[in-house]
Amino acid sequence: MEQLWTNARIATMADDGLGLIDDGVVAAKDGRIVYAGPAGGAPAMAGTVQDCGGRLITPGLIDCHTHLVHGANRANEWAMRLAGASYEEIARAGGGIVSTMRATRGASEADLVASALPRLDALIAEGVTTIEIKSGYGLSTDDELKMLRAARALAGHRKIRVEPTFLGAHALPPEYKDDSDAYIDLVVGEMIPAAAPLATAVDAFCEGIGFSPAQCERVFAAAKAHGLKIKLHAEQLSALSGSALAARHGALSADHLEHATEDDVRAMAEAGTVAVLLPGAYYFMRETKLPPIDAMRRHGTRIALATDNNPGTSPTTSLLLMLNMAATLFRLTVVEALRGVTVNAAAALGLGAEIGTLENGKACDLAIWDVGDPAELVYRIGFNPLHQRIKDGQ
Amino acid sequence: MEQLWTNARIATMADDGLGLIDDGVVAAKDGRIVYAGPAGGAPAMAGTVQDCGGRLITPGLIDCHTHLVHGANRANEWAMRLAGASYEEIARAGGGIVSTMRATRGASEADLVASALPRLDALIAEGVTTIEIKSGYGLSTDDELKMLRAARALAGHRKIRVEPTFLGAHALPPEYKDDSDAYIDLVVGEMIPAAAPLATAVDAFCEGIGFSPAQCERVFAAAKAHGLKIKLHAEQLSALSGSALAARHGALSADHLEHATEDDVRAMAEAGTVAVLLPGAYYFMRETKLPPIDAMRRHGTRIALATDNNPGTSPTTSLLLMLNMAATLFRLTVVEALRGVTVNAAAALGLGAEIGTLENGKACDLAIWDVGDPAELVYRIGFNPLHQRIKDGQ
Ligand SMILES: [Zn+2]
Ligand SMILES: [Zn+2]
Repeated sequence: MEQLWTNARIATMADDGLGLIDDGVVAAKDGRIVYAGPAGGAPAMAGTVQDCGGRLITPGLIDCHTHLVHGANRANEWAMRLAGASYEEIARAGGGIVSTMRATRGASEADLVASALPRLDALIAEGVTTIEIKSGYGLSTDDELKMLRAARALAGHRKIRVEPTFLGAHALPPEYKDDSDAYIDLVVGEMIPAAAPLATAVDAFCEGIGFSPAQCERVFAAAKAHGLKIKLHAEQLSALSGSALAARHGALSADHLEHATEDDVRAMAEAGTVAVLLPGAYYFMRETKLPPIDAMRRHGTRIALATDNNPGTSPTTSLLLMLNMAATLFRLTVVEALRGVTVNAAAALGLGAEIGTLENGKACDLAIWDVGDPAELVYRIGFNPLHQRIKDGQ
Repeated sequence: MEQLWTNARIATMADDGLGLIDDGVVAAKDGRIVYAGPAGGAPAMAGTVQDCGGRLITPGLIDCHTHLVHGANRANEWAMRLAGASYEEIARAGGGIVSTMRATRGASEADLVASALPRLDALIAEGVTTIEIKSGYGLSTDDELKMLRAARALAGHRKIRVEPTFLGAHALPPEYKDDSDAYIDLVVGEMIPAAAPLATAVDAFCEGIGFSPAQCERVFAAAKAHGLKIKLHAEQLSALSGSALAARHGALSADHLEHATEDDVRAMAEAGTVAVLLPGAYYFMRETKLPPIDAMRRHGTRIALATDNNPGTSPTTSLLLMLNMAATLFRLTVVEALRGVTVNAAAALGLGAEIGTLENGKACDLAIWDVGDPAELVYRIGFNPLHQRIKDGQ
């Protein structure tokens, strides 16, 4: 099937900038892009033609770091904290990540799918065509596998590409209290082998309150032994050089990075490890330490952006708002922000050859916007100008 | 016509808290509430019955401070600033408030209506049933009146209550450069008399870069002489005690208030002047000085929240996001935030007898939400759980 989108402003994201072409055309055959460029050079094609009325076409957006599948929310715990409750009072009331673990363990796969769908729909309504979803609230082999199956099942309910990531080393379950090495034994010896057919990557939470760099290295080794790509939550709350470690292991991405050093950022640039920034968590947790953006620019570290959707530290389902927060709070430019949810987000998922730009051979995933200037996608706050979303040409 | 909404959790906002009733009913006759309370006490009524399936009903939301009607946007200027352009370069490129004035002057009333409608629709989609809209980008008598007419015309296009506010003293137009007193002569001598039939209130921008307290006092006097209520943009960037001045003049509200003092806040509480907080502008301008919330609590100053939608300092069209920003950035509680967009926003518009709570005799403006806990309306970021919106019973 051949398709043409004409009379559009297109932002291809090829090369370094937005790749803006004012009178542009996108052509697709069987769901793959066969042309994206000036109208003058478009191939003669049969098939359907859509006049875009001068609207802007970008690649479909990519949310490359989410915990979209989870039981319950933590609104009540947050309300208690705002009203002055202490952490102890909240813990006694059953709050914290353990509450999400309990709710997730108590949910069936179907429950997890049903509760994730409204959140997924909010992202889809903003032109998201690919989403990464992590496990990490089950923290037992069965419950982690259930989360991964739920993540994969979402792709059967909506026109969406789902990249499932195994994050068993997210937090220490109560059963392994005071014995994190034994839990890592379980993660590498049982969970990763079992998760390998269901996940494309393995992630871990490298932090003083999470797992040590040495423990994360064991996770990386097991992931590689099972042919899985690696990622890391690193440098969110303290500087452990987890991001440099991840880079040395060829990780796709290191994520958060507020406390990353110049050395970390250089190591990431050299290894091609993408810096995934999560401004929603920075905002919601009222962090004040900014990620080292200037160092990333100097060293050429690629920057991606994501929602980090999760019930404890980033209950957001708006990737457009993350564009604005990245610009407002982190001072990313419009070009950096938009590349962060397209071409660089694709790289953070190891899908650079498949999605993220409007170039020949890639999947025809498009977002068509009712805006004159691409900057409006970053500038507006809580406004969704999506006109149409196309996934694999449909 | 009689109507019943049953099987609902209702948040009446009567008295001090949320007024939560778990098994609640709202009944209306000819668009006015005749009962809102426990199911057990509901009157026997004929008419339509809607089973709310346990959903939450709040009063329709009220956005009590906006500049929704304006020409153009300033996305490009903002993108330039993020890319490192200086204020001089932006001014040379035609940026700043004067660019909005030029675009607004160049637009017809129909243009202004057409460009405001998508922004209005975004607010309506979140359950907003009443909106205040200010003039203030025309800065000539004809153009200010055109803005007020456009604001009023919006109510003919959508089911929405519009409260138009005259804000001629918003900025100094280039024609009056270096003679702000002469411009205030025009505002009080010509504009306010002409605007009186079109507006319900008069506002001014009391600031070092705006108008002095003495000039604002002249505006207040003219407003009162023409039977108009008053409001004031005060203490956003510096402490001029404009808010205390407004309180002494019986203003409905003083708005922004980051730099307000304890004395200002006490004066407002004593006069019943509402403190309208605008977290979107605080966020977008990266302010760090928090409004004196604790002093407001101690003195009993009522707090409202609004989007401040405008192209220069708050390009937001999400009142739900303002709930989250008020909690995240200002540490308002869930109860304070929700009262800020209902009962206290009504008071900020002088409409406390008409809207803002679910009580007998008030307009039947409802927002019906797909949430279990009212806290979710504040906790979620960029997610809209509105199930249905009812304005005057419809
Ligand atoms: Zn995360
Ligand atoms: Zn304002």
